[in-house]
Amino acid sequence: MAAPLPSRASPLVLLTCGDPAGIGPEVVVRAWNEPAGHALGRLRLMADAALLEAVLARRASLPPARIVTVAAADPRPSRPGELLVVEPADERIDPAAVPDATITAAGGRAAAVAVQQAAAAVLAGTAAAIVTGPLHKEALHAAGYDVPGHTELLARACGLPDEAASMMLWLPGTATRSPLGVVHATLHEPLRSAIARLTPEMIAAAGRRLDDGLSRLHGRRPRIAVAALNPHGGEGGLFGDEEARVVAPAVAALVRAGVDATGPLPADTLFGRAFRGEFAGVVALYHDQGHIPVKLLGMHQAVNVTLGLPLVRTSVAHGTAFDIVGTGRADPAGVLAAIEAATRLTVAAAPATGRDAP
Amino acid sequence: MAAPLPSRASPLVLLTCGDPAGIGPEVVVRAWNEPAGHALGRLRLMADAALLEAVLARRASLPPARIVTVAAADPRPSRPGELLVVEPADERIDPAAVPDATITAAGGRAAAVAVQQAAAAVLAGTAAAIVTGPLHKEALHAAGYDVPGHTELLARACGLPDEAASMMLWLPGTATRSPLGVVHATLHEPLRSAIARLTPEMIAAAGRRLDDGLSRLHGRRPRIAVAALNPHGGEGGLFGDEEARVVAPAVAALVRAGVDATGPLPADTLFGRAFRGEFAGVVALYHDQGHIPVKLLGMHQAVNVTLGLPLVRTSVAHGTAFDIVGTGRADPAGVLAAIEAATRLTVAAAPATGRDAP
Repeated sequence: MAAPLPSRASPLVLLTCGDPAGIGPEVVVRAWNEPAGHALGRLRLMADAALLEAVLARRASLPPARIVTVAAADPRPSRPGELLVVEPADERIDPAAVPDATITAAGGRAAAVAVQQAAAAVLAGTAAAIVTGPLHKEALHAAGYDVPGHTELLARACGLPDEAASMMLWLPGTATRSPLGVVHATLHEPLRSAIARLTPEMIAAAGRRLDDGLSRLHGRRPRIAVAALNPHGGEGGLFGDEEARVVAPAVAALVRAGVDATGPLPADTLFGRAFRGEFAGVVALYHDQGHIPVKLLGMHQAVNVTLGLPLVRTSVAHGTAFDIVGTGRADPAGVLAAIEAATRLTVAAAPATGRDAP
Repeated sequence: MAAPLPSRASPLVLLTCGDPAGIGPEVVVRAWNEPAGHALGRLRLMADAALLEAVLARRASLPPARIVTVAAADPRPSRPGELLVVEPADERIDPAAVPDATITAAGGRAAAVAVQQAAAAVLAGTAAAIVTGPLHKEALHAAGYDVPGHTELLARACGLPDEAASMMLWLPGTATRSPLGVVHATLHEPLRSAIARLTPEMIAAAGRRLDDGLSRLHGRRPRIAVAALNPHGGEGGLFGDEEARVVAPAVAALVRAGVDATGPLPADTLFGRAFRGEFAGVVALYHDQGHIPVKLLGMHQAVNVTLGLPLVRTSVAHGTAFDIVGTGRADPAGVLAAIEAATRLTVAAAPATGRDAP
């Protein structure tokens, strides 16, 4: 099921800009102008060339870059200053229909089409990985795409149900902290219902996905920890029974399955321990438990890694940031980190299909 | 009700070591050896001199310090290298009864007695503030003190019910981040019950305490934010109704009461915004929501500020850390930050009694 990888030495990576009205085109072009990404793979930008040119011309803060339209199969290496653009088939959008920092159906459509055609190229074997810029959920809906976001769009492009795909939040290491992967057991739902419906199976499934994703990123089995739900990890039952009743059985199941898992550990000290190198990954039980620490330390560097699909796809973790479009403040670190993660994943064994594979 | 402050120019600050078996004596003595604390106030150590001497002699990693026993009313300034010790009345503990890194009734008793007598000195007007080292809850219980911790011990020393006292978590600023105060609407209870029992009144009361504490620390009214409970701040009701039903009414009540409050704001980006200077304080709705970001950025620098009592008291936010006792790794930054916060609070208007005063 996994697509053949064209060249593991210098994988062909398809970048998309996300919504052209947001900071996506800026951060992608700034990242392109750094040598780092080109040293890891042959970069291509999946975009409508005329639309891209018009958008870049509007953003005065950007350095000049020459746009060169190439065929998907063109093997040439990429370099800063020369944007190698692969255009989506049969799809041209009027630049005037996508004003900056505005939710439009045209912007949503441009983002969705680029992702869909990039996915098709990877599934067909002409590219090794996709790195996506931020799209705007409401623009996507305005364009008639009834999906919560990128991940589900990609699942459908792979002919899989939405639930097949899931996400690992990935923060690259720095001089002062270790890299960290986070997978959530629950995500976009009320905290109250997340707690009520949490089961050992959900937590163990998240742990297996984390173990799988990090094994491929690091090339070795990671040490992971499962966060506790309650203050002080439940303080021996005094502050809640979910640790004993739900989390501990999940950790036991993970250990039985060969995962190097520990927990439940108090969440308020766990992330510090992980960033100091004690754990390569953390299973968070609810959205903010994982997002508070990752966004606090690496708002602009964080990467979303899609798990469970037969293609490699990473993304910036930030949004379209309409408030800073064109100001020159948008940080390309997330795109560069996403390129790095994507190329590491293409070098690893081809991803398994199905999120719960051991 | 508030005690008279002896000298606002150089307030007399009583330090306690917490449990002598933990890192408390080490961090207090290391902090004493820095000039910074002495520039802010006249420091005293409330401790059994013989016990302190024996404990310090066991910790090979500590620089030598001379112990000088002084009367509580002695006005001399303090300086590094010379520990000015005020001994608790009628209370001597055999050093052999308090081995390092061990839970003992003697250790719990030494910690409790020092805090109680320090509180009495502040209430009597001989000292301006208390800064406490970490005690061990189980040692306290072994010594027969039926209290959850320091804060309740102090409430009782003031003749007030446990609920009169509450806590603000305080992280001093650095070159790269603004200082931040955090007050919790719920704290030591299961997350599930915290959510179920959250009311606008509880959140507004936390906001008023935060406003009061930060007004005294900063000398001006702070801008504060109230965190949301659910992912993406509830995403307009899609991920939970507590934002509209419980949090927004609390923010409205705070604004009506003259507090510069905003919210509910998504918790995963709120703390970054606060540390970048947008807010001086955050109301956290549950324990880990406030503790994850504060401990992640400042495990060793964080300070607990007691609110609602007629005395100034601050504390390190870390524990006794039995695992690193005597290794030289214990960081005195929390003690220094606690001294700084305490002296700022003594310079401010005398604290109001009652946690919910406007």
